[in-house]
Amino acid sequence: MRKPYFKSNPGDPAPLSVTVERKVRFDEVDMMGIVWHGRYAGYFEDARVAMGDSVGLGYMNYCDNGVVTPIKQLHLDYHKPLTHDELFTTEALMHWSDAARINMEFIIRNEANEVTTTGYSVQLMLDLQGEVLLAAPPFHQAVMAKWRGGELG
Amino acid sequence: MRKPYFKSNPGDPAPLSVTVERKVRFDEVDMMGIVWHGRYAGYFEDARVAMGDSVGLGYMNYCDNGVVTPIKQLHLDYHKPLTHDELFTTEALMHWSDAARINMEFIIRNEANEVTTTGYSVQLMLDLQGEVLLAAPPFHQAVMAKWRGGELG
Amino acid sequence: MRKPYFKSNPGDPAPLSVTVERKVRFDEVDMMGIVWHGRYAGYFEDARVAMGDSVGLGYMNYCDNGVVTPIKQLHLDYHKPLTHDELFTTEALMHWSDAARINMEFIIRNEANEVTTTGYSVQLMLDLQGEVLLAAPPFHQAVMAKWRGGELG
Amino acid sequence: MRKPYFKSNPGDPAPLSVTVERKVRFDEVDMMGIVWHGRYAGYFEDARVAMGDSVGLGYMNYCDNGVVTPIKQLHLDYHKPLTHDELFTTEALMHWSDAARINMEFIIRNEANEVTTTGYSVQLMLDLQGEVLLAAPPFHQAVMAKWRGGELG
Repeated sequence: MRKPYFKSNPGDPAPLSVTVERKVRFDEVDMMGIVWHGRYAGYFEDARVAMGDSVGLGYMNYCDNGVVTPIKQLHLDYHKPLTHDELFTTEALMHWSDAARINMEFIIRNEANEVTTTGYSVQLMLDLQGEVLLAAPPFHQAVMAKWRGGELG
Repeated sequence: MRKPYFKSNPGDPAPLSVTVERKVRFDEVDMMGIVWHGRYAGYFEDARVAMGDSVGLGYMNYCDNGVVTPIKQLHLDYHKPLTHDELFTTEALMHWSDAARINMEFIIRNEANEVTTTGYSVQLMLDLQGEVLLAAPPFHQAVMAKWRGGELG
Repeated sequence: MRKPYFKSNPGDPAPLSVTVERKVRFDEVDMMGIVWHGRYAGYFEDARVAMGDSVGLGYMNYCDNGVVTPIKQLHLDYHKPLTHDELFTTEALMHWSDAARINMEFIIRNEANEVTTTGYSVQLMLDLQGEVLLAAPPFHQAVMAKWRGGELG
Repeated sequence: MRKPYFKSNPGDPAPLSVTVERKVRFDEVDMMGIVWHGRYAGYFEDARVAMGDSVGLGYMNYCDNGVVTPIKQLHLDYHKPLTHDELFTTEALMHWSDAARINMEFIIRNEANEVTTTGYSVQLMLDLQGEVLLAAPPFHQAVMAKWRGGELG
């Protein structure tokens, strides 16, 4: 059993989940016929974008509110390789955070539904001067209120 | 013998040449152990940047003068594959142009000095409103004057 | 009007067409907010793969028959930029060829259905010793017979 | 002060260090003008390859001995962004391991010698059937003997 990537507190709303699907491209595999490890950051990103878009916490939503959300930490665990032309899904799980952070977990599964790759990313929130925000902006808090109210996911 | 990519007129100064060298990376080769064809645009770009920097016609030089130079046309001819870890050179040849264009030819050679890949790119010059310039900006013309005077290359 | 990339002879079957759709990714755009020119080879590839899969002339079909089909020539014409998050389609048109070659044309269109990028690729057929085939393999010729018979497309 | 990525035992030889240098490419930065987080896996890889080559533990050395060394874990901490055209160094530190693993730490520094990015990777050793090796192959152990003897680094 995998150790959880993020700690949760009793009473935290359950993570939100979004899953995207696609096939491994020819130019993504190496001489061994397996996906080069450096490409998985892009697979995670696809799911991160879908997650943000689905709840109104996308890149442009922050931009429109004068906030940027750079990646502070990225972690990847490789369990099984993906191979050329293989169909796979990437699930993004957004974990509840009381801090001004975006905590996402990622789970890639192959066509046999085996977990091939897992990981997480932590994003900070900065204003346009590059200062770290101590509290999430109002539009983000409005999304969290809906989340806690069970209106999302 | 290869057909020339660009027409030249009698009296045009000879092309300027800059060559860069590097090795094929692990993540650039495919399942056959050869460089995926889509990566060569990046190899050409490395030489394009080196060419621009060497004569003062780099990306930032145009930017500082309110000019952007998007690629209008890119062409690649693949003669021989490059393989993993192979050392190769990319030569950029800037061809003289009386029009407000940047015409570059590229020649990639392997360690045995065989030509493996050739091609060319054509760049337009636009102002910041996206309008095509009919004449190159003064700093560009100053470089061309030096070129014609034999002070470059 | 664009000049045709490939010559056709009277009586040649019409090109086969397949179109794929997707959005521009965050990591595909440059500082100007437009797609970096070197990424379009990958956009073409997505449509090339879809074309091959749709008629039984995919990478694996050739592999299974001891044939590899390297790109010999790639050409791109950039008409308009694609921007971040923009939805676009890539159409691959396979042109009839009596020679042992795969000739494909590509047309990228933005959401307003404007043509943004066009180009073509030419692929050779080689046996596993790297020798150029003078005639297409039987499975390829069987596909062409169907094509001429109007059973495809 | 950063927490160490790897535990060391008293008596373990000091890590081996190799540093590579290069500039940020135009196609590596995003709309904000900073390097997209997913590209750093490639920066680490460049230093990993240089490290392996410098001590005889490169990709080909393992291959020649029937061993593959897939990445099992990759971690990145982003402290400061790198920007377009910025010169940076990537240091790979190979940490001593009694297990059949390759443990490397990475430190990226900008031209002002500030640490911008850190991280680590863990690689397993597998035979050609994909079975995890319980002990490193003899050629690897020979390198370790030299390392312990102070003949490396």
